[in-house]
Amino acid sequence: MNTIGKITRWQAALCALICVSFAFQATAQTLPVLPDPAATIPADLGLMRGFPPPPDKTVRFDNGSLFKFPATRWSFSHWRELIPSAVVWRGSGPVSELPRAARDLDGLMFLTMTGEKMTWKDAVAKTYADGILVLHKGRVVYEKYIGEGALERPHIAMSVTKSFVGTLAAMLAAQGKLDPLAPVTKYVPELKDSAYSDASVRQVMDMTIGVRYSEDYLDPKAEIWAYIVAGGGLPPGPDYQGPRTLYDFLLPLKKEGEHGQQFGYKTVNAEVLAWVVKRASGQSLASLLSNAIWQKLGAENDAYFAVDRVGSESGGGGLNTTLRDLARFGEMMRNKGRFNGKQIIPNTVVAEIERGGDKALFAAVGYKTLPGWSYKDMWWISHNAHGAYMARGIYGQSIYIDPKAEMVIVRYASHPIAPNVANDPITLPAYAAVAEELMK
Amino acid sequence: MNTIGKITRWQAALCALICVSFAFQATAQTLPVLPDPAATIPADLGLMRGFPPPPDKTVRFDNGSLFKFPATRWSFSHWRELIPSAVVWRGSGPVSELPRAARDLDGLMFLTMTGEKMTWKDAVAKTYADGILVLHKGRVVYEKYIGEGALERPHIAMSVTKSFVGTLAAMLAAQGKLDPLAPVTKYVPELKDSAYSDASVRQVMDMTIGVRYSEDYLDPKAEIWAYIVAGGGLPPGPDYQGPRTLYDFLLPLKKEGEHGQQFGYKTVNAEVLAWVVKRASGQSLASLLSNAIWQKLGAENDAYFAVDRVGSESGGGGLNTTLRDLARFGEMMRNKGRFNGKQIIPNTVVAEIERGGDKALFAAVGYKTLPGWSYKDMWWISHNAHGAYMARGIYGQSIYIDPKAEMVIVRYASHPIAPNVANDPITLPAYAAVAEELMK
Repeated sequence: MNTIGKITRWQAALCALICVSFAFQATAQTLPVLPDPAATIPADLGLMRGFPPPPDKTVRFDNGSLFKFPATRWSFSHWRELIPSAVVWRGSGPVSELPRAARDLDGLMFLTMTGEKMTWKDAVAKTYADGILVLHKGRVVYEKYIGEGALERPHIAMSVTKSFVGTLAAMLAAQGKLDPLAPVTKYVPELKDSAYSDASVRQVMDMTIGVRYSEDYLDPKAEIWAYIVAGGGLPPGPDYQGPRTLYDFLLPLKKEGEHGQQFGYKTVNAEVLAWVVKRASGQSLASLLSNAIWQKLGAENDAYFAVDRVGSESGGGGLNTTLRDLARFGEMMRNKGRFNGKQIIPNTVVAEIERGGDKALFAAVGYKTLPGWSYKDMWWISHNAHGAYMARGIYGQSIYIDPKAEMVIVRYASHPIAPNVANDPITLPAYAAVAEELMK
Repeated sequence: MNTIGKITRWQAALCALICVSFAFQATAQTLPVLPDPAATIPADLGLMRGFPPPPDKTVRFDNGSLFKFPATRWSFSHWRELIPSAVVWRGSGPVSELPRAARDLDGLMFLTMTGEKMTWKDAVAKTYADGILVLHKGRVVYEKYIGEGALERPHIAMSVTKSFVGTLAAMLAAQGKLDPLAPVTKYVPELKDSAYSDASVRQVMDMTIGVRYSEDYLDPKAEIWAYIVAGGGLPPGPDYQGPRTLYDFLLPLKKEGEHGQQFGYKTVNAEVLAWVVKRASGQSLASLLSNAIWQKLGAENDAYFAVDRVGSESGGGGLNTTLRDLARFGEMMRNKGRFNGKQIIPNTVVAEIERGGDKALFAAVGYKTLPGWSYKDMWWISHNAHGAYMARGIYGQSIYIDPKAEMVIVRYASHPIAPNVANDPITLPAYAAVAEELMK
């Protein structure tokens, strides 16, 4: 169980997990049975240790192990060592302060969605966190790194990336540089024969696009995996004839259903929005994020985007940041766009996100763990009593912003199961419990 | 002449340049005729502009254009966007000051090695500099960026990397962690059946290794190109069956001649030394450089190493730094290992390098532009009246340290011709002239 060489055994285990997970999604009655996270720490497994590491403990791009658990416990903290990347420069200014006010949360008890009593300490440990940080009123009350997680080491944010792209798009709109009501083809005429031929930018921002494309991570034939291959995130097979860039992947996408009629979470929409943002701003995603946000935040470290074979950043899932810098970004959102003594993005952008999207369209999809939520500008809005909203990425990546509790929780993880339905039953109640505790 | 799409025309031109260069090496009488550097600026050529850039203006790893002039004028400043990389973290401390004392050097006149009168301004322009910075007594007297060169953007250092590896090895030796007199196989037993089976670490550090391996960049069949393919710097062909990691490239190398009997500049020696350094320190090159030097320098930006397909840094040519941070490293050397208020490496390490290596062994190779020089700890020692010494990388990368003039010049470039014999006739006299000027 402790080497990638035994990946077939892991794959079998993973397959079992997936079946459990499917059952779990169907019933929401029981938590899936998963391997003990403490037994999957890369240093203990010998993953990527030694010069060179033993072949059966080497994580590679070539064989796709970068996406296979438990290799992901290493790769998610070392993405640039496997994939080309573009820097999001932190600038040359001072690092902004993140004052500390540590709280002992370990014993805090809460009920999981399945009715299990659990402590915060166990919630952190059982959800394969690589790092988790809680801010209350802008102060670090809890910060923990596990396994390869480290304060200086960027971690892949997966689809948390989309919330950055949505925020940049909303910012450009507020600045008059991007018209959300305009057709996508105003910015990207190349998409005139695609599913996006008659879509508006707003529909893309809110993912109400009718496009034939499956985001089902548990189906190896789903288009999401082809998208990852096209974008350079997984190796193409020897006879691969498909698209070799993110741009080329988007062009042939076909329409399925009508735009504006339903919510459908599909990564290609974020990729289209990234293309629109680049065209509207005249900047690469990496440059725009650096200039508009990262430098102003006083980020502690450079961030980076994974790029495809022509150097184009993945706006759907390619961002990598340190946990503390992700916390700075979350805290800026909580403060209506202000941080580090500056109004970094317009407060109207944050207000729009906080108001959220169409709950009825969202409800129709039937996310078991997100009842009453909506989706807006590539953020997930809870509409709970605290007005909490999230950026969410597969395998457990998240920013959780609770305006009422004046709390931000950021978490990077390498959960064995991609869909967040696998950790929401623990993490969402845990976050709510921490919020209540901090408000006491 | 202005697109990579017309690469065949460039290749023809390059071939012509190479012939001229060969003739030049043979005679040292005339400078090769080269394209006007000002006509090869990526922004003007449209290289990598647009989302996406036009196919004929896209620099890619897949087609090897990252190594083809004029694409190199872009790629050398964007290496990580084409190749996976490992960060050399700058740490979280403040940036060390580089005080400024600008001097107008533009009109400074000197004689090239071929007897041509030239100004400093022309010397900078004609040698395809992407950036050049002159420190005098620790102050920046001249700093210029051209084309893709930018103060925040790391540039590939090519074989300047070797001088970092040599310095780290010498540092470990001074700390008692590495025995230069020990056989290489003490640290890397895997090399017991290779050319290195009976070599000492010291022989590797000074490149007096008898190994069948050609460093002739002008010969497409030379092993240096196979080394680059194995290390992930160029794409393998479809039927490629050769080594796919730097480690695997080194194992089958065969002996040719005796060790310690001649100097032979061969990148594989730096790669072997990198392996020894990793084993002796227990750290990756990136971690060791960060911990031992980069963080202590107060570097302005993270540096990074290009890595091979198993995440191993290229110690032969993979380092990328900003020009200012390269200047900090050079200034630390000039100050006998002190910088930023700290003794960063032992002064005995610098003294050993300054003393230099065996001039007779070096002379036997017949470098036209480096008469009387030697090689020590992977540095090039001039033995001139100023005691100048250099780190040198193909296509014009260099650190030039002139102890007597209290001067350090660092330069990143994307010269069309790999061997430095193509720019030495201009740059070496230019550096000497600046030294004289600053000493007035």
